[in-house]
Amino acid sequence: MATDAVRRHDPETKTFASDNYAGIHPEVLEAIALANGGHQVSYGDDVYTEALQGIFRRHFGDQAETIPVFNGTAANVVSLRSMCAPWEAVVCPATAHINTDEGGAPEVTGGLKLLPVPAPDGKLTPDLVDRQAWGFGDVHRAQPRVVSISNATELGTLYTPAEIKAVCDHAHGLGMLVHLDGSRITNAAAALDVPLRALTTDAGVDVLSFGGTKIGLMLGEAVVVLNPDASRGLPYLRKTSMQLASKMRFVSVQFEALLGGDLWLRNARRANAMARRLADAVRDVPGVTLPRAVEANAVFAVLPADAADRLRKRFRFYNWDEQVGGGRVEVRWMCAFDTTEEDVDAFARALAEEMRAT
Amino acid sequence: MATDAVRRHDPETKTFASDNYAGIHPEVLEAIALANGGHQVSYGDDVYTEALQGIFRRHFGDQAETIPVFNGTAANVVSLRSMCAPWEAVVCPATAHINTDEGGAPEVTGGLKLLPVPAPDGKLTPDLVDRQAWGFGDVHRAQPRVVSISNATELGTLYTPAEIKAVCDHAHGLGMLVHLDGSRITNAAAALDVPLRALTTDAGVDVLSFGGTKIGLMLGEAVVVLNPDASRGLPYLRKTSMQLASKMRFVSVQFEALLGGDLWLRNARRANAMARRLADAVRDVPGVTLPRAVEANAVFAVLPADAADRLRKRFRFYNWDEQVGGGRVEVRWMCAFDTTEEDVDAFARALAEEMRAT
Amino acid sequence: MATDAVRRHDPETKTFASDNYAGIHPEVLEAIALANGGHQVSYGDDVYTEALQGIFRRHFGDQAETIPVFNGTAANVVSLRSMCAPWEAVVCPATAHINTDEGGAPEVTGGLKLLPVPAPDGKLTPDLVDRQAWGFGDVHRAQPRVVSISNATELGTLYTPAEIKAVCDHAHGLGMLVHLDGSRITNAAAALDVPLRALTTDAGVDVLSFGGTKIGLMLGEAVVVLNPDASRGLPYLRKTSMQLASKMRFVSVQFEALLGGDLWLRNARRANAMARRLADAVRDVPGVTLPRAVEANAVFAVLPADAADRLRKRFRFYNWDEQVGGGRVEVRWMCAFDTTEEDVDAFARALAEEMRAT
Amino acid sequence: MATDAVRRHDPETKTFASDNYAGIHPEVLEAIALANGGHQVSYGDDVYTEALQGIFRRHFGDQAETIPVFNGTAANVVSLRSMCAPWEAVVCPATAHINTDEGGAPEVTGGLKLLPVPAPDGKLTPDLVDRQAWGFGDVHRAQPRVVSISNATELGTLYTPAEIKAVCDHAHGLGMLVHLDGSRITNAAAALDVPLRALTTDAGVDVLSFGGTKIGLMLGEAVVVLNPDASRGLPYLRKTSMQLASKMRFVSVQFEALLGGDLWLRNARRANAMARRLADAVRDVPGVTLPRAVEANAVFAVLPADAADRLRKRFRFYNWDEQVGGGRVEVRWMCAFDTTEEDVDAFARALAEEMRAT
Repeated sequence: MATDAVRRHDPETKTFASDNYAGIHPEVLEAIALANGGHQVSYGDDVYTEALQGIFRRHFGDQAETIPVFNGTAANVVSLRSMCAPWEAVVCPATAHINTDEGGAPEVTGGLKLLPVPAPDGKLTPDLVDRQAWGFGDVHRAQPRVVSISNATELGTLYTPAEIKAVCDHAHGLGMLVHLDGSRITNAAAALDVPLRALTTDAGVDVLSFGGTKIGLMLGEAVVVLNPDASRGLPYLRKTSMQLASKMRFVSVQFEALLGGDLWLRNARRANAMARRLADAVRDVPGVTLPRAVEANAVFAVLPADAADRLRKRFRFYNWDEQVGGGRVEVRWMCAFDTTEEDVDAFARALAEEMRAT
Repeated sequence: MATDAVRRHDPETKTFASDNYAGIHPEVLEAIALANGGHQVSYGDDVYTEALQGIFRRHFGDQAETIPVFNGTAANVVSLRSMCAPWEAVVCPATAHINTDEGGAPEVTGGLKLLPVPAPDGKLTPDLVDRQAWGFGDVHRAQPRVVSISNATELGTLYTPAEIKAVCDHAHGLGMLVHLDGSRITNAAAALDVPLRALTTDAGVDVLSFGGTKIGLMLGEAVVVLNPDASRGLPYLRKTSMQLASKMRFVSVQFEALLGGDLWLRNARRANAMARRLADAVRDVPGVTLPRAVEANAVFAVLPADAADRLRKRFRFYNWDEQVGGGRVEVRWMCAFDTTEEDVDAFARALAEEMRAT
Repeated sequence: MATDAVRRHDPETKTFASDNYAGIHPEVLEAIALANGGHQVSYGDDVYTEALQGIFRRHFGDQAETIPVFNGTAANVVSLRSMCAPWEAVVCPATAHINTDEGGAPEVTGGLKLLPVPAPDGKLTPDLVDRQAWGFGDVHRAQPRVVSISNATELGTLYTPAEIKAVCDHAHGLGMLVHLDGSRITNAAAALDVPLRALTTDAGVDVLSFGGTKIGLMLGEAVVVLNPDASRGLPYLRKTSMQLASKMRFVSVQFEALLGGDLWLRNARRANAMARRLADAVRDVPGVTLPRAVEANAVFAVLPADAADRLRKRFRFYNWDEQVGGGRVEVRWMCAFDTTEEDVDAFARALAEEMRAT
Repeated sequence: MATDAVRRHDPETKTFASDNYAGIHPEVLEAIALANGGHQVSYGDDVYTEALQGIFRRHFGDQAETIPVFNGTAANVVSLRSMCAPWEAVVCPATAHINTDEGGAPEVTGGLKLLPVPAPDGKLTPDLVDRQAWGFGDVHRAQPRVVSISNATELGTLYTPAEIKAVCDHAHGLGMLVHLDGSRITNAAAALDVPLRALTTDAGVDVLSFGGTKIGLMLGEAVVVLNPDASRGLPYLRKTSMQLASKMRFVSVQFEALLGGDLWLRNARRANAMARRLADAVRDVPGVTLPRAVEANAVFAVLPADAADRLRKRFRFYNWDEQVGGGRVEVRWMCAFDTTEEDVDAFARALAEEMRAT
């Protein structure tokens, strides 16, 4: 009884384009198979989703409430809608994924106004929060209610636990809440060598978007409510946001594969280590500069546009900023849970070759 | 390298609650594994999603444009939003899933007004459409723009190709469009022994929500645009509706497993046959009546509430209508692609036992 | 210093089309003039709006909080949005203005799902509420949160205080709230000869849309919160709903003209009396039947379509139902605060003439 | 037959807080009275609204289509919704009223994403537009569709016809449209001594929000479509946006009073002249600086906070920026159509007194 589907890709090809170019970690695929067979209650009333609560609580504390959704856009929008009344707004860095890369989903589908703050390294501080956190009680101003930060950030930088705590304390002092876009929270925790809760629950974060897809799931993100008073109506919002999976057992069991043991940590450490290896390998290549700290699994580099274009034909990756000037571009190289030392070394060699050819 | 996830359910247990209590068809799971490994472009620019266009076109004609989404609510809402300007409305049966079972997602998230029509067997006719299709050009009335029908319907009934064509011709004559909620379109085509396009493209349907999950996928539904003039902005709407999968290859390849050969037909025939077998087995049980035609994979029955409750402890299923009166309830028994003759026979025996005990 | 505007209409012409075909009551226009001159704080922080609170409290009790908005659609939508979380829904008669005559504003702009109930005379009862008030806690069903009723209804019928109380008690017993669309609440109170609070505060209504325009204002409706626990965020919702007037003093002072003394009662009594006079005058015209009780300021009549069309050329009015059959239509004749006995008598004579010519 | 309303304010009091603190120009009030009496078709099918089309066309050209709405927030949001599909976005200066002062109405109620650009003097240029006008065709980015500018700007500065044309040409070259927030377009035209169409139709603006309230109406703004291809569904959007006045004749006739002759020009010239007089009177007061060009009817000044507070007790006005430092604040002084030379001189004297007392 063979499938009619056919393999259409070369499973050996790797890229440095995005951690979501990677596939499913074998242990996760095994977990899906293990949850298969027979009938299970649909729409989240299955035994795998029930078990998920305990699994997340081991990482995030006894008060954590977790609901899986399909993707990161949804984790963010559903989180924020559950934290905001319709007239309330979200302070975020101008570079936040919710502001720049979700097609306007927070505004279009969530009716949420974002209050962006320019933040050179993608990180907010209490002072930066204050740039937009004002006008409380003034009906002419969308009411600032949530501060949303990302860790690791979209620029590959990290917040330490103390930095997150400073933002949370400040927000709470203003009567505001904190949302953390944790699309790469596992990379952050692995890089800082702290437990997940150090960057979230213990630092005062109220609601977390926990990222599974980029770290080895087929698909699945989770809204994790760390402060029960900070979120309202989540199950209803998930449904009306079209994020309630009927066969949810297959989403939930993936999280168990990831978080039940140390798969999350192994995967994150690998991706981070490969980024460091890549940075080390290319830092001294003449004509290449690394303009940002390499703290998680991303490496940003500035190099001649023509060299980047030639290199891209060999290994796919994205331009980040084409306005650098002088015929140069800033590019982003991402490492994934399945990036190998051989992949990195081959890429670094290819870069060196193309730079010599410039 | 074993997964940390553990099996938590009995893979032998079957129910008659819903076709989405079933798991993943083995050929579909095999397809997911086959698409794994290496890197593929994310967000739908992968080779599996590219191939999907041709696969759907073989079934729905050369003009069909297909985009996968995560679930049925989304397939419906994204379809309808792409067909309607913000001030336009959707005529549907009062029993339509979009009206009764999606938590208000069309209105809440899509801003779509539904214009429901009472329809005893869940089916619209041109006359029933006219109950709500009026007031064109009157700003005080949400402008009727789309007629949305389901096949098979929520009541287990079917539209024939001629019945669909009659609705489509009528709608088009009014300047309206037709959306078909095809959450169980495979069951309908199998039961009527016609190709999928006979119920859709050839009958004049403009946009189809094609259902994959209930017929054996892990998850995945597709918006299939049959009339390119009927839909606008679908890729953008999918993104803002939070339905763009990053690792889309794993959604798309499931559809290939289903539609590349005849898996869809085998699965649908099985589910339909089991419903007929069940109906035949219980029709003559004293005290049980079957109030609706058994045309696809659903059996509706009226029986004493206490017998239903005892039976439910042995095989899970849902009450459909608790207002029947006389201590009786109407229940719904669904058969899935993995329902076996043994399952049906055991269930029928259990029913007979519980009826004797009443 | 004469205006460049020119009079373009005949101020003697009257119709029976709608109470909002009438103009501004002279006392209201005088009030606008009186509030003119000099500077006043904008956006509702003026002395006229401040005084409004006390004026409404005299009618609705000491806990009433009032905010003016521009029109009736807004009063209803802003009220309901302040009473519902985004996933909550509104049970209403199928004939409710919010369901049929606001272009879909509740759904499109408010994201509110309506749960309509067929109600032959436009009135809900506890039993009729129960047709839609179910499924609490089920994420698949938009959560019933508010019962919305109109008094007088769109069909010219009235709820007594006891009937409203019955609906309110029932709704509250279900954990729901009650909104009253009081676009013609003054007509209702005048017809029943009760104070305004007998039909609202004292009967258990939580939030009222108080209608000013139809009873003599230039424009202006008010959201009156009778139960402070029933409404949240009203000032913010008014602003984001684009209903915050900058020169609000001129809206507020109109309400003072209406409610500061007995102008509301004089106007409502007049309109109601003219409807009764009209009903009495036409009831016995051969070929004309009055299918509905004449309880407020509306008269519904069934007559031959051609007679209606001829009559309409002399006095404008609307068809209500063109599906009556037998070449007949149901029409609606509305009386306004400025309808005179002469207007009614002339209209009745014209009707008799056209009926004789049929 | 006297009104029950009572005068509650001193009609001699003036402020420098906002041009919407002023009341109704006497010619406008006279126009309202003139349109009163008798019955007129409601919801915009009256003779005054019909005449409005011709009146606006005299100013804006033969293709102009005009619909009145209640306030400026609505004029902007309804305009923009008619220009954008739900996934499209609006480039605007960060200081735009739509971004900072409408409580989030564009996002919350319109579902519109704004793409703000820092613009020191409140004005966009082609280069500034390019900061956000990119990513066309990328589903991850809300699609830039409209450039929205204000004239006069929120900072009291003006665009010349050539500057507007440059923005329009650039936007059109990108396939984008231009919206002009003309809340003070009359002040701009008067200050530049050009006809209204020089700043709008002739410069390439597609849709205009025409401001009436700040220049002497009781209330009323208008959406004026200058390019019929740029706007879709306006009558429906007005209704669902709760902006359709039932007694619209009284809104429309106000515009006739304003635009039928030269009242708009007289009022705007007066307000502008008073701002220049004020600037001239205070420019040399020691300790007061005017940080911005005085081009229309606003004067911005920086002065010691304590002097500002004392002055405010005598003449109301708003702080604009409290972060100036050094114990100083930036304040905004607005002149209205009814500001007199005596008002200005008294205010300037009071300022000088308070500065001496600092």
